[in-house]
Amino acid sequence: MKKMPLEKVFTLIEPGPVTLITTFDGRKNNIMTLSWITVKEFTPEFVFITGPWNHSYHALVKSQECVISIPAVDLAETAVRIGTYSGADTDKFEKFGLTPVKADCVEAPLIKECFANIECRITDHIKKHNIFVLEGLAAWIDEKRKEKRTFHAVGDGTFVTDGRKINHRKLMISKLPEGV
Amino acid sequence: MKKMPLEKVFTLIEPGPVTLITTFDGRKNNIMTLSWITVKEFTPEFVFITGPWNHSYHALVKSQECVISIPAVDLAETAVRIGTYSGADTDKFEKFGLTPVKADCVEAPLIKECFANIECRITDHIKKHNIFVLEGLAAWIDEKRKEKRTFHAVGDGTFVTDGRKINHRKLMISKLPEGV
Repeated sequence: MKKMPLEKVFTLIEPGPVTLITTFDGRKNNIMTLSWITVKEFTPEFVFITGPWNHSYHALVKSQECVISIPAVDLAETAVRIGTYSGADTDKFEKFGLTPVKADCVEAPLIKECFANIECRITDHIKKHNIFVLEGLAAWIDEKRKEKRTFHAVGDGTFVTDGRKINHRKLMISKLPEGV
Repeated sequence: MKKMPLEKVFTLIEPGPVTLITTFDGRKNNIMTLSWITVKEFTPEFVFITGPWNHSYHALVKSQECVISIPAVDLAETAVRIGTYSGADTDKFEKFGLTPVKADCVEAPLIKECFANIECRITDHIKKHNIFVLEGLAAWIDEKRKEKRTFHAVGDGTFVTDGRKINHRKLMISKLPEGV
């Protein structure tokens, strides 16, 4: 995996893909599947929603960090299955044959099988709304991986994969941040 | 347009489509293009990010309401163009040939050409983070419209349209809210 410039990292999250969030609670790694996430700034900052109903919540609050991993469409079924098990009684890396890779800035692991990984620290937790605000510290991309199409949760058990690309850079050029 | 049950409305936003946000500031309608949005709850609640750099911000703060409209892929270029003009000096409904339709619960208009419209009130504004928290009050879907594929902003001026669907309802059934 290669380092990705931080100013481009928001382009991984803006399309709204299903993500996998890894955590380390001081003893064990865990993974949760998360679709309730958005870009917050170009800087890069993110907002996601989770609460005590998820086992990962406790590791997030304790460690104040995580990794946002982005699975390609060949991992769709795995991502769905990850969301149906709890880290309370399952080692999800082992169960789903995923490989934890040491991160640079956080103790939560990268997922080798995901084409992109964003190391994040939590900068705010708005408990009233179950909102976490995150800052990206480092990002990694597996440029050699051929399948990089992501998939999007509809929320009813169905998903939509990335289809045709449209290029409107010329129309938007005045609105794009530098270097993107 | 037909009413859509509120418990299903989150399925419009969870995939992460480009949205159009309409507002009414007491004098004029306006539209902005927005990708920084996520589902917050199944209830339905949403979180989106915007700030004083957008003309619509002032109407949002003043009126405490808006409509989230979802354009299909045939409106992609229109949505991009809407994002490059300001409501300060442009009537975007007129300029882009869009039709404002009276909403039930808010003064901001629905957009007739969009296949789905969600009337929302703002329930919280976390200024520190430019976060708006919204509650859906009513939702409308144009069931007769054939093209309902959405499109997703990458953030670099390119977009990805909805592709193949995957059905994992059987795997996820225990995690789905009732009625979805």
